[in-house]
Amino acid sequence: MSAKNMIIAQSGGPSSAINASITGAIARGMASNKIGRVYGAMNGIQGFLEKKIIDISAQMKTSEDFDLLIHTPAQALGSSRYKIPKGDEGTAIFEKILSILKEYNIGYFFFNGGNDSMDTVNRLATFFADRGEDIIAVGIPKTIDNDLVLTDHTPGFGSAAKYVAASIGELYLDTIVYPYPAVTVVEIMGRNAGWLTAASALARRDGWAAPHLIYLPEIIFDPQTFLTQVREKLDGEKQIVIAVSEGIHLADGAYLAESGAVEDMFGNKTLGGAATKLESMIKNEIRIEKLKTRAIQFSTLQRSAAHFASDTDLKESYQCGYRAVEVALDGQTGVMVTIQRSGDDPYLTWFDVSPLHEIANKEKKIPMEWITKDGTDVSEEMIAYLKPLVRGDATEKLVDGLPVFFRFDTTKLVTP
Amino acid sequence: MSAKNMIIAQSGGPSSAINASITGAIARGMASNKIGRVYGAMNGIQGFLEKKIIDISAQMKTSEDFDLLIHTPAQALGSSRYKIPKGDEGTAIFEKILSILKEYNIGYFFFNGGNDSMDTVNRLATFFADRGEDIIAVGIPKTIDNDLVLTDHTPGFGSAAKYVAASIGELYLDTIVYPYPAVTVVEIMGRNAGWLTAASALARRDGWAAPHLIYLPEIIFDPQTFLTQVREKLDGEKQIVIAVSEGIHLADGAYLAESGAVEDMFGNKTLGGAATKLESMIKNEIRIEKLKTRAIQFSTLQRSAAHFASDTDLKESYQCGYRAVEVALDGQTGVMVTIQRSGDDPYLTWFDVSPLHEIANKEKKIPMEWITKDGTDVSEEMIAYLKPLVRGDATEKLVDGLPVFFRFDTTKLVTP
Repeated sequence: MSAKNMIIAQSGGPSSAINASITGAIARGMASNKIGRVYGAMNGIQGFLEKKIIDISAQMKTSEDFDLLIHTPAQALGSSRYKIPKGDEGTAIFEKILSILKEYNIGYFFFNGGNDSMDTVNRLATFFADRGEDIIAVGIPKTIDNDLVLTDHTPGFGSAAKYVAASIGELYLDTIVYPYPAVTVVEIMGRNAGWLTAASALARRDGWAAPHLIYLPEIIFDPQTFLTQVREKLDGEKQIVIAVSEGIHLADGAYLAESGAVEDMFGNKTLGGAATKLESMIKNEIRIEKLKTRAIQFSTLQRSAAHFASDTDLKESYQCGYRAVEVALDGQTGVMVTIQRSGDDPYLTWFDVSPLHEIANKEKKIPMEWITKDGTDVSEEMIAYLKPLVRGDATEKLVDGLPVFFRFDTTKLVTP
Repeated sequence: MSAKNMIIAQSGGPSSAINASITGAIARGMASNKIGRVYGAMNGIQGFLEKKIIDISAQMKTSEDFDLLIHTPAQALGSSRYKIPKGDEGTAIFEKILSILKEYNIGYFFFNGGNDSMDTVNRLATFFADRGEDIIAVGIPKTIDNDLVLTDHTPGFGSAAKYVAASIGELYLDTIVYPYPAVTVVEIMGRNAGWLTAASALARRDGWAAPHLIYLPEIIFDPQTFLTQVREKLDGEKQIVIAVSEGIHLADGAYLAESGAVEDMFGNKTLGGAATKLESMIKNEIRIEKLKTRAIQFSTLQRSAAHFASDTDLKESYQCGYRAVEVALDGQTGVMVTIQRSGDDPYLTWFDVSPLHEIANKEKKIPMEWITKDGTDVSEEMIAYLKPLVRGDATEKLVDGLPVFFRFDTTKLVTP
């Protein structure tokens, strides 16, 4: 019997580093004589169920293809928000997945995504094990939110953090050119965990003061306290920058941006507008002559700005994918690759695995001791933690000054 | 009598390249034995009138200082929106400027800014000439809007164009990961001239389709036509990206984003919200199942993202400042340095000067023949024009992965 094939799929929200992870997995898979073809499923489980399967081994032809894929932002294999239902309906889906895997002679299943994706891999691995099926399922972490447990940090976070910190620094310079008072409120992604918003603090180097206030979802947001804190800052500085997580919420648990929130398919709230609401509050409540206010959302730019990715992040993301295949070849299943750290400076890490059932559906928030007492700043420990993650500059290919991206040919589907 | 001193000031909106221009002027000024001290006025004319004058010659001490200043976004000397009034009040201001210049033994005045700033230099030069004063005033162009006449393009435009094109490309990849229909509307700066919005077309390389529709202020915006065009595009493609200028306006001349507009101190409208309005129109009027809409404003990021500046732009911006001093030493006054082009590929340019009275208060819009017939795209000529301006990658200094900025010490003011 021929060597089993492997398949990889991606899910969840985009990041600048998610393709570095599949590049690592593809490279290790193609290098192994224990693995037959390296397949890719388009649009996660959803596309897999529709047999939107491509033969990556046939499409990655040159070293340049690998280089380009590493530096291409957002899932090159597409994503989906599909979630396998619970109960009988779910079991039917698992049966279908199993039959497709067998049809394509696939023995190794890799899923590259965040929290929800890890839950999917966990359920799949459990299903295969319960059935006594010899199919391995391994998770490769990814999320700019940095909210997965048991890993020091998540692939994709460093690049987003680097973009956030550099952009906060640049727009602070933009705001101080005029001799007038100004408040700029910047909204940063992160529903329940404030890691990415906290990364804005890295802009505060060489004596630059921005961000002046940081509002994290780990701290209950109180409008009156907020206004007092802004007034106090404006007493000392003419122009201030406020970094705010999209997920800040009131004492009753309601997101500040709630009014416009809708439920997406995971039951998460689609947020947006926290910065705009804070800007309105400042405009209405703080009376300072000529005060200029501005709300800025980093929007999807913060997760797709591959042109300013962190090289540390890309290298680690690649390693996570690479290690996932090694772990699978080693016979481990139902696990996720993790990054472990033993030092900040020099920055020392190694890769490990943890059981998916200890990771799925859990959320790692910022420890309270890394947030300052008044809740508007982060500690030195946080800065030391963040600093190495944004180091190193990605050397993406630019043609005529603009980045070049890799693209799979999705018209050529594989038939088993 | 000792050599006359020179002074330089900046005005208008920030850009990533504006400090490259003053660096060039400072370097040429410090190199000349015909020039005494190189002074800088903080916050344009406003700070000059308050004698907020620093001695740049004493502060630029190392080659690294020069390198850092080139790559620092937004006016290092600060800006202002102050405009010298007309009539007697204005004459009194000109008298005051003259007396301060004499007090500081200044013979060369350089002003680095956009349209409004060039008007100021023009009036100053005329005033000095009328009085028979031996003071030279030269303009150094700057504007991401690229709307100055008699120059092929303006310093700062190329870097903003590069950021816009790369970001449009990246966020398109972000939007196509899901197998659902989606419209992303991106708002780009430009009140009356659509150059920067047009630059989004550079993202359309290697077969990538975004932006699918481009709306420029040069073309009257018609809501019904817009909706028809969006519907047509969504017939052919699942996800589309629309680039829209903040300044699009209706047939009666009203800005689409008017409702929230306020007059700033130059009588210009402060815009924002065109993308949000278009997004709402699409959400309300286009009925496609699961259609996801998103509005993104590049906001001040597009003019301050020095981390992805165009090297071509930075070099030309430097040259403009450098040449301004040479022109002044040559005895010319009342002129602005211009960039002239003789070829797109190879890209060949030279520097020239034009009289400020032919530049001030004029606005260069996109020629109609560079806009396609249906008004939603730009021609090949436009692409050929834009392409060389974004080439080359700025090599800014990064420490721990984040940019380092130059800062003048504004606490040390010069006394004459």
